[in-house]
Amino acid sequence: MRAPDHPERLSAPAELRTLVERYLDELALTPELGGLEESVRYSLAGGGKRIRPVICLAVGEAVGTEVERVLPAAAALELVHTFSLVHDDLPALDDDDERRGRPSAHVAYGEAVAILAGDALLAEAFRLALSYPSSGVARELAQATLAMIGGQYLDITGDTDDLVRLHRLKTGALFSAAVGCALEAVELPEREQAPWRAFGAELGLLFQIVDDILDGDGYAELEGLDRARELADEAAGRAHARLAEVDGDTSVLAEIVSGLAVRTV
Amino acid sequence: MRAPDHPERLSAPAELRTLVERYLDELALTPELGGLEESVRYSLAGGGKRIRPVICLAVGEAVGTEVERVLPAAAALELVHTFSLVHDDLPALDDDDERRGRPSAHVAYGEAVAILAGDALLAEAFRLALSYPSSGVARELAQATLAMIGGQYLDITGDTDDLVRLHRLKTGALFSAAVGCALEAVELPEREQAPWRAFGAELGLLFQIVDDILDGDGYAELEGLDRARELADEAAGRAHARLAEVDGDTSVLAEIVSGLAVRTV
Repeated sequence: MRAPDHPERLSAPAELRTLVERYLDELALTPELGGLEESVRYSLAGGGKRIRPVICLAVGEAVGTEVERVLPAAAALELVHTFSLVHDDLPALDDDDERRGRPSAHVAYGEAVAILAGDALLAEAFRLALSYPSSGVARELAQATLAMIGGQYLDITGDTDDLVRLHRLKTGALFSAAVGCALEAVELPEREQAPWRAFGAELGLLFQIVDDILDGDGYAELEGLDRARELADEAAGRAHARLAEVDGDTSVLAEIVSGLAVRTV
Repeated sequence: MRAPDHPERLSAPAELRTLVERYLDELALTPELGGLEESVRYSLAGGGKRIRPVICLAVGEAVGTEVERVLPAAAALELVHTFSLVHDDLPALDDDDERRGRPSAHVAYGEAVAILAGDALLAEAFRLALSYPSSGVARELAQATLAMIGGQYLDITGDTDDLVRLHRLKTGALFSAAVGCALEAVELPEREQAPWRAFGAELGLLFQIVDDILDGDGYAELEGLDRARELADEAAGRAHARLAEVDGDTSVLAEIVSGLAVRTV
């Protein structure tokens, strides 16, 4: 069912981000988490660009839905992303003591609590995704989460020469899911999903290549910086082309694509 | 929709356990997990009584459904249970080097892989639960998982004097969900669920009290062994009474209740 509620104007990315921040701030966690809630909120409140939920909301608006309908799916994506950061930062994995300029969860709350906080973030993400009548959002999220975990495994074990595959799993999958979750949240008919899905794939690839350029690994290591920059421009070009094919006002998404292509952080 | 397929006879608990073992053995994991699959399978293959999935299947048969329909939900419960064991065994939490007579996952594969294997088990559990047309099984699983994580938090932080609450969250919730997931898997109409849900609550309590008696904590510590034994008998009595109220052949479930009440391992 296509939502009947067409917003009068699209929200700018900064407005969408504010909506995400407010929704996360006010999000009621499962009461049974008890004292664990503090570390979950600490990890979630760490800021970041909220780029996955912002894209999810922008896709929702582009197909003509009020953002309110897409917010739980958007927040679920951010919870899965945060879960992955909390566990990746653990001493046994990347051993990062800082995250976005603050002590990482295991430094602030200890390793045991950080492990449980990550677990809780993942389970809460599914609870949110399951607040929809259909299970499409949760299915999308489960697939992306499993891909992301597979990518993290390749990363810590060095169990691959295929850096592109590693980063596609670790980064691209959840990024593409930001588009897929929006489509499922608004229950866009499957026959209308193909160009959107193609857009999601290009967006994931674009984010991943630029990430690699900024970190100096993956595509940048494999192809050299200049070629990686070309590949990013090509992915951005294809993302714009896919946007032109979909039915809806994609001006805000085009702005986001252009921003991702030239981002420096 | 009530399943139209009424099995001719109920399976005995040992038969149900064999079905669970076979299903878990043959379970196709998400290909993107790659090399992580080995540690996930290692943890899953550790044996155990498979009591949660067996109860789930027995409830399914009692309401007249073929076990095949309930197997994914039953397996999802066992994956969540295994996820919790893998993370609980980590050095930062209970620091257990052995699990069911074998090296625990972090000893066999290292801490980083064990953390990711636990994450993957949880995400795979949701993928399985989401293989149903309705999202009821996954919702049930999310609630129970969050309760369980809250219980584990109380356990490691010693952040409560309420040992009964701790064990209800840590053990009882997933046990009750074994009943709830079966009801959702067969889509039993909500008006018929109440006596089953009451049975699930008693079953969770029974398992928890007996667990405490065997471990010498929780109810046993709080009430003394003799009184805890009385409480277990009372819970078993109420579980039998609730079973007598439901519509279906509950003979196998009655056998399971009696077995749980007198179990010594």
